[in-house]
Amino acid sequence: MHRLKKLDVVVESERLQDVLDIIESSGAKGYTNYEISSGEGKREIRQDITGYQYPYKSTALYVVASEEVAKKIAQRIYSEILEESAGILFLSDVEVIRKDHF
Amino acid sequence: MHRLKKLDVVVESERLQDVLDIIESSGAKGYTNYEISSGEGKREIRQDITGYQYPYKSTALYVVASEEVAKKIAQRIYSEILEESAGILFLSDVEVIRKDHF
Amino acid sequence: MHRLKKLDVVVESERLQDVLDIIESSGAKGYTNYEISSGEGKREIRQDITGYQYPYKSTALYVVASEEVAKKIAQRIYSEILEESAGILFLSDVEVIRKDHF
Repeated sequence: MHRLKKLDVVVESERLQDVLDIIESSGAKGYTNYEISSGEGKREIRQDITGYQYPYKSTALYVVASEEVAKKIAQRIYSEILEESAGILFLSDVEVIRKDHF
Repeated sequence: MHRLKKLDVVVESERLQDVLDIIESSGAKGYTNYEISSGEGKREIRQDITGYQYPYKSTALYVVASEEVAKKIAQRIYSEILEESAGILFLSDVEVIRKDHF
Repeated sequence: MHRLKKLDVVVESERLQDVLDIIESSGAKGYTNYEISSGEGKREIRQDITGYQYPYKSTALYVVASEEVAKKIAQRIYSEILEESAGILFLSDVEVIRKDHF
């Protein structure tokens, strides 16, 4: 068994492509993206500069990669996306029987 | 890196709001709810008092929180929901780079 | 708390029933299947023998079971499905408060 890291990310749907660009350029070999039917975080309702409040949609995905690659992706998502838009990310340990797909 | 707990829950869709009420009142800052396209457990087919059998729909969600909060939510879902309706729950370890969203 | 294994699997949708048959015959008591809205792996585009390239759809699921059952399912999915079609699988540690649903 080989130990790898799973990185789970939830971001606003309009930032999904930016996350996928970060993943692809980091050297990870794939990702799994699935739709969220509902969710709630501290910034679920957005307010524009006129004070108008509106909800936004989010999407979830995970990537399984080496610890080095997973942490590099995580740091870039924090600095390039989560500073300015809503979302979460977290890491966990996973084991794979064969490493050649990751 | 900060260690937190991820609590995964699968419940009958008609009990989702009860689960969300437990999560909100426990102090967790958010959740991620996604639809299940199929699933099977020991109580997937329900039987009413006339003997009529019918399937039910389930939904899945996860919460990332401190161990204390995650276990409190888990215990309440067991005692208030899973005694009488179908579902599963389990906990796992996750790591976050910044704790301020959880 | 009881320690179990979570097995996550992503497979081409047309092989889902084969995966469910393996899960059921292994003694696992349930699974959770959810749809992927997008994903990318090294074999996401298929090529038939005439050279025609076409995309395929995948689906994701997880099973929580004893380590022995989870590893048996993983080995069978590798040898019966992932040798010839696209997908990934990985294992992780989870804890449950009550073992009777798994």
